[in-house]
Amino acid sequence: MNLLLINPNISASVTSLIEAEARRAALPDTVLATATAQSGVAYIETPGEAVVAAHEVFRILGECHDQYDGAVVAAFGDPGAVQAKEVFPIPVIGLTEAALASAFLLGGRFAIVGISERIGYWYEETVAALGMTRRYAGYHGLGQAFKDVGSVGVEARDILLRMCLQRVHEGADSIILAGAPLAGLAREIEAEVPVPLIDGVGSAVRMLESMVRAAHGPRKTGALSAPPAKPHQNLPAGLSRVIGRHP
Amino acid sequence: MNLLLINPNISASVTSLIEAEARRAALPDTVLATATAQSGVAYIETPGEAVVAAHEVFRILGECHDQYDGAVVAAFGDPGAVQAKEVFPIPVIGLTEAALASAFLLGGRFAIVGISERIGYWYEETVAALGMTRRYAGYHGLGQAFKDVGSVGVEARDILLRMCLQRVHEGADSIILAGAPLAGLAREIEAEVPVPLIDGVGSAVRMLESMVRAAHGPRKTGALSAPPAKPHQNLPAGLSRVIGRHP
Amino acid sequence: MNLLLINPNISASVTSLIEAEARRAALPDTVLATATAQSGVAYIETPGEAVVAAHEVFRILGECHDQYDGAVVAAFGDPGAVQAKEVFPIPVIGLTEAALASAFLLGGRFAIVGISERIGYWYEETVAALGMTRRYAGYHGLGQAFKDVGSVGVEARDILLRMCLQRVHEGADSIILAGAPLAGLAREIEAEVPVPLIDGVGSAVRMLESMVRAAHGPRKTGALSAPPAKPHQNLPAGLSRVIGRHP
Amino acid sequence: MNLLLINPNISASVTSLIEAEARRAALPDTVLATATAQSGVAYIETPGEAVVAAHEVFRILGECHDQYDGAVVAAFGDPGAVQAKEVFPIPVIGLTEAALASAFLLGGRFAIVGISERIGYWYEETVAALGMTRRYAGYHGLGQAFKDVGSVGVEARDILLRMCLQRVHEGADSIILAGAPLAGLAREIEAEVPVPLIDGVGSAVRMLESMVRAAHGPRKTGALSAPPAKPHQNLPAGLSRVIGRHP
Amino acid sequence: MNLLLINPNISASVTSLIEAEARRAALPDTVLATATAQSGVAYIETPGEAVVAAHEVFRILGECHDQYDGAVVAAFGDPGAVQAKEVFPIPVIGLTEAALASAFLLGGRFAIVGISERIGYWYEETVAALGMTRRYAGYHGLGQAFKDVGSVGVEARDILLRMCLQRVHEGADSIILAGAPLAGLAREIEAEVPVPLIDGVGSAVRMLESMVRAAHGPRKTGALSAPPAKPHQNLPAGLSRVIGRHP
Amino acid sequence: MNLLLINPNISASVTSLIEAEARRAALPDTVLATATAQSGVAYIETPGEAVVAAHEVFRILGECHDQYDGAVVAAFGDPGAVQAKEVFPIPVIGLTEAALASAFLLGGRFAIVGISERIGYWYEETVAALGMTRRYAGYHGLGQAFKDVGSVGVEARDILLRMCLQRVHEGADSIILAGAPLAGLAREIEAEVPVPLIDGVGSAVRMLESMVRAAHGPRKTGALSAPPAKPHQNLPAGLSRVIGRHP
Repeated sequence: MNLLLINPNISASVTSLIEAEARRAALPDTVLATATAQSGVAYIETPGEAVVAAHEVFRILGECHDQYDGAVVAAFGDPGAVQAKEVFPIPVIGLTEAALASAFLLGGRFAIVGISERIGYWYEETVAALGMTRRYAGYHGLGQAFKDVGSVGVEARDILLRMCLQRVHEGADSIILAGAPLAGLAREIEAEVPVPLIDGVGSAVRMLESMVRAAHGPRKTGALSAPPAKPHQNLPAGLSRVIGRHP
Repeated sequence: MNLLLINPNISASVTSLIEAEARRAALPDTVLATATAQSGVAYIETPGEAVVAAHEVFRILGECHDQYDGAVVAAFGDPGAVQAKEVFPIPVIGLTEAALASAFLLGGRFAIVGISERIGYWYEETVAALGMTRRYAGYHGLGQAFKDVGSVGVEARDILLRMCLQRVHEGADSIILAGAPLAGLAREIEAEVPVPLIDGVGSAVRMLESMVRAAHGPRKTGALSAPPAKPHQNLPAGLSRVIGRHP
Repeated sequence: MNLLLINPNISASVTSLIEAEARRAALPDTVLATATAQSGVAYIETPGEAVVAAHEVFRILGECHDQYDGAVVAAFGDPGAVQAKEVFPIPVIGLTEAALASAFLLGGRFAIVGISERIGYWYEETVAALGMTRRYAGYHGLGQAFKDVGSVGVEARDILLRMCLQRVHEGADSIILAGAPLAGLAREIEAEVPVPLIDGVGSAVRMLESMVRAAHGPRKTGALSAPPAKPHQNLPAGLSRVIGRHP
Repeated sequence: MNLLLINPNISASVTSLIEAEARRAALPDTVLATATAQSGVAYIETPGEAVVAAHEVFRILGECHDQYDGAVVAAFGDPGAVQAKEVFPIPVIGLTEAALASAFLLGGRFAIVGISERIGYWYEETVAALGMTRRYAGYHGLGQAFKDVGSVGVEARDILLRMCLQRVHEGADSIILAGAPLAGLAREIEAEVPVPLIDGVGSAVRMLESMVRAAHGPRKTGALSAPPAKPHQNLPAGLSRVIGRHP
Repeated sequence: MNLLLINPNISASVTSLIEAEARRAALPDTVLATATAQSGVAYIETPGEAVVAAHEVFRILGECHDQYDGAVVAAFGDPGAVQAKEVFPIPVIGLTEAALASAFLLGGRFAIVGISERIGYWYEETVAALGMTRRYAGYHGLGQAFKDVGSVGVEARDILLRMCLQRVHEGADSIILAGAPLAGLAREIEAEVPVPLIDGVGSAVRMLESMVRAAHGPRKTGALSAPPAKPHQNLPAGLSRVIGRHP
Repeated sequence: MNLLLINPNISASVTSLIEAEARRAALPDTVLATATAQSGVAYIETPGEAVVAAHEVFRILGECHDQYDGAVVAAFGDPGAVQAKEVFPIPVIGLTEAALASAFLLGGRFAIVGISERIGYWYEETVAALGMTRRYAGYHGLGQAFKDVGSVGVEARDILLRMCLQRVHEGADSIILAGAPLAGLAREIEAEVPVPLIDGVGSAVRMLESMVRAAHGPRKTGALSAPPAKPHQNLPAGLSRVIGRHP
């Protein structure tokens, strides 16, 4: 199967991290492609920034979704992912969705560890919107600046490890390492953490493969079927075919 | 005070409805301006369409927010409104937020009546995201097509009235007439409905005036303060000043 | 419009604070009157004390509600306010309701800071009963005795300011300064706090003005319409006209 | 032990019903006394009426609580019962509390059947305030007028039975017959209903006996301990000893 | 009445504790019998161990339930208790159910103090499954090993007392001393704790007596009536009469 | 990888259905084995029956878990599955867990359609215990008897199809066909239902493969790590190695 990994951040170094970890996680015959946001910010930390990112995700999917069997929105917070399920006829999932599904199946309570204190509010709202708050054991964000979003997982490895151990001490039964910039960190430190560490990118690839294999096809009616036809104007080219389109 | 009413739909006729009802509701010395989406759909019914609308709201606010004391996102479902509170240094509210605050103060349980069955899912998710589900008594959408979104409130007046009476019978203590296309309908039918009818546009103007008079100023720290400075590219001109800006 | 501010505490000095802050918040042509509880305690801290206060609010409204366009129950915890919506044919709101509506529109999570640790339980139950727990970020009460409930906001200004800053540090996106005795404190310290401070009295006046301008009229049916006619005895004079009255 | 049964309604015929059913439920050596509200309405149906009733419950308890080991507030909706736990040094419970505790121990979901449609809103809010909504399967109120609140259980027996059977059909695992006017009905119809019927008065007596036997004594600190000493005025004689009292 | 106390742990010393405290709590004419698990662990700390314990509770009840008017599953976490309500035609309650009902009637928020940190997760899930989370103020488990589960309440008395006082300081309005091994501790330390201490065994006996006196009889239909007849094989002798039985 | 499919029912015909559908869903190199309950009932419909089934699941896993990389508890309601995560050092999932994770990733609200009305209560409690109620749109059970649990999906195909269409009409965005006896039905009717149909067995195999590929290893500490060592007696042979074992 052919999968598209969309980095809604403009950072090419993060796209590389995503691709490498996705390749490790994927089935042997899964073909992976990547796309990086052309407009936006270096890394998305807030719901406001996510408004811009979600639009860019839609623009990218509008252009090329018909070349893929499924797509990952490879940023935690899942900008545009839930809404893309409705608009595009292929399975689309976000890193948060995938990581929460993994945590759900592992059982117990999950904590989230990420690269920024500011970003915690957005993650928490995302968990709530997805309906998984009952199993959520809190967020812990890196409290200090970092040099490069493409290597923060290496740079702050030891601090992030201590943050994980602290969450375990406080009762977390699994820990999600949140955000594409931390892709791969779970493998690096899992031997030192006594509960499962969940990698968002790896989870997303495996979960998306499961969805593509289930072969459900797009919804034909209801709240998550394609938007109804109606007048529209000035939409990005790819989107005008799927939003407000005339049948 | 100067207030901006943003219609995130592309329908100029709906903008006229919004403006007329807003003028009726506003204090005598409130100055009102309107803006209509340049890209998007005739009326937003789904979270997918709202991704496009939220981006357009951001583009409009990015261009002209510094000319106003506050802004209304004049569509139910509030595309971009919650996120705009963080990004822009003026009060911004959506029709849902304003109508829910009105219903909250009136007490008891509120129902929502709107112009489309499909749109109910989005409204329900919006109520949940705003944290008001405990007081929510359900949605009822118009089950038939209409000719013109700019006059659906006139065209389907009697059906909408019966829908309101049905919700009262089922226990609603107030009813929100949802969606900018229904602006003004509350005044038309309130004598025939035994509980308060809440007009989203009127509520938004009055509530926004209250917020502007409270004069809080923008947050200087925390999850809803301006996004942190960081590298960015290709943002619409106005947005590049407020998202990912360098200090 | 003519508004009544009811102080359900017996403290005349608190009534003065309420009146002064209400006057600052009100529209130029709003006429304000005050009433102070004749029976009760110096300041209400518990649900048990609120039973007495709610009855006194009802007695006062029973006597004079027909002279006003709306009324504020000017104590946090809102003794009798929610129930008065049903019994009296004018809009009635409590300080908690008004402050929560303000916090709701400002977005994010709100904390509450008040003058007593004991009072926190009652406030928390009030927030829950109003259905706003999802946005609630906790209560912090003054941990020490004060000399005079009419000037506690001046006396403990610096401590209260530090309590506010602590809540911001812990993630509050706005802070409600709770209780009529703190009326006006928000203006005094807002320059030193990086998120909006919500004054209950100011919020209540502005929100009540919005409600009166919306001109909904009393409910004619349903759970919040006037109580049904039935036999009654020994009610305070004003109440016997509105509770259990014969049609 | 000596128990007081307080009827917060002014209807002496309902007091008789309460007393008869309580006597049937009580342990052989339990001594029962009754008190009937001197001011108030024939039967309480709304939160507004309950404001008056709660005050009357407090007045009665203020006068004579020291003659009893415990007290029942013998009206569903529990006017003043929760607050009395704080103010008075003996166990006090309401019919709703007792019936919910019985339903809780029986397991599964409980429905409530009562004598008035209007009263449902108040009961539902009471269940929510007590934190038992998760097990609640809905309310069904008698949809027609009745001649005498003291004999409505006899008069409308067959209709109430059908209402119970309907709730069973809809999934209720037990049914609370709500309101003191229905005291004793459970015994009359239990053979015809395939799930447990819970009598509020019987439950309250048995549960209060359990509490008195547990001999906990009043709380000495915390949110439910006696209200702190403070200035007060014009309280009913008995209340001035327990509310705002000087140490 | 004849009541059976089932200790789902294999520890005879704990059975003795249970019996002694039950005798103190019971009505004079209540006859008590005990049964101790034949297979299982010394004390149940986890949901996994409870799977084994629940089966043993079912085996014991299957053998002898028809000799009793009611049964207590005398372990916190209530292994098999909720399910036994459905399968066996007598009232069955667990220590958690009984203690929560007691806390519910005492009002306010309850905390739980127990003998193991590990056990907290299971207790918390039990409180949630019973629908009482809204009133729950947290769990605090003994952080150190103990010599003998049959005397841990004596051995660690002072530490457990300090743990209780800490929960009061943090806002608990009552405290449940959880687990059969702590039976009787409440009496030992109640004079030193300013809020009610709830003994699970004592609560269970008193609550079960209340249920037996209410004389509801088994459900004849619905989700908690006896399991439908169907083919089965190899069930323990007593169970084959009540599970999957042929009518 | 080697996976074990445990049928906690005693019906060999259902085991065959499970195996066939699992084989269709599995990756080419996944090796599947099955085990059928030796004691229990023909099909589990209630929490009481699940107590017996959970114990049997534990007995089977105790005997042979070390021969497999993961195991599916192939009954909806997941008897013993959540608890097995703690006790056994391999990934174990239930059909409900797997189906809910699939529905979660598909987005929107899921309904459940199953073979018995009685079973709905247990499924609903299972959804709640797993923390997924927020996305749950209700259960619909077959209202009539069937001849053979191993072919009910064929026998009642058309009725089950209509039940699915009814749930779509009521707003379900996906539908879980619940219970091992319906394994394979989704493929049979998916062309006639306009939203995704989720097969529990297929979901479980794909999700378990994802978990095994993630290679987390057992937890070494916390609430879901192996139960602590302690005295035990009379456990089934395999269990005595993993429950209450001495280190």
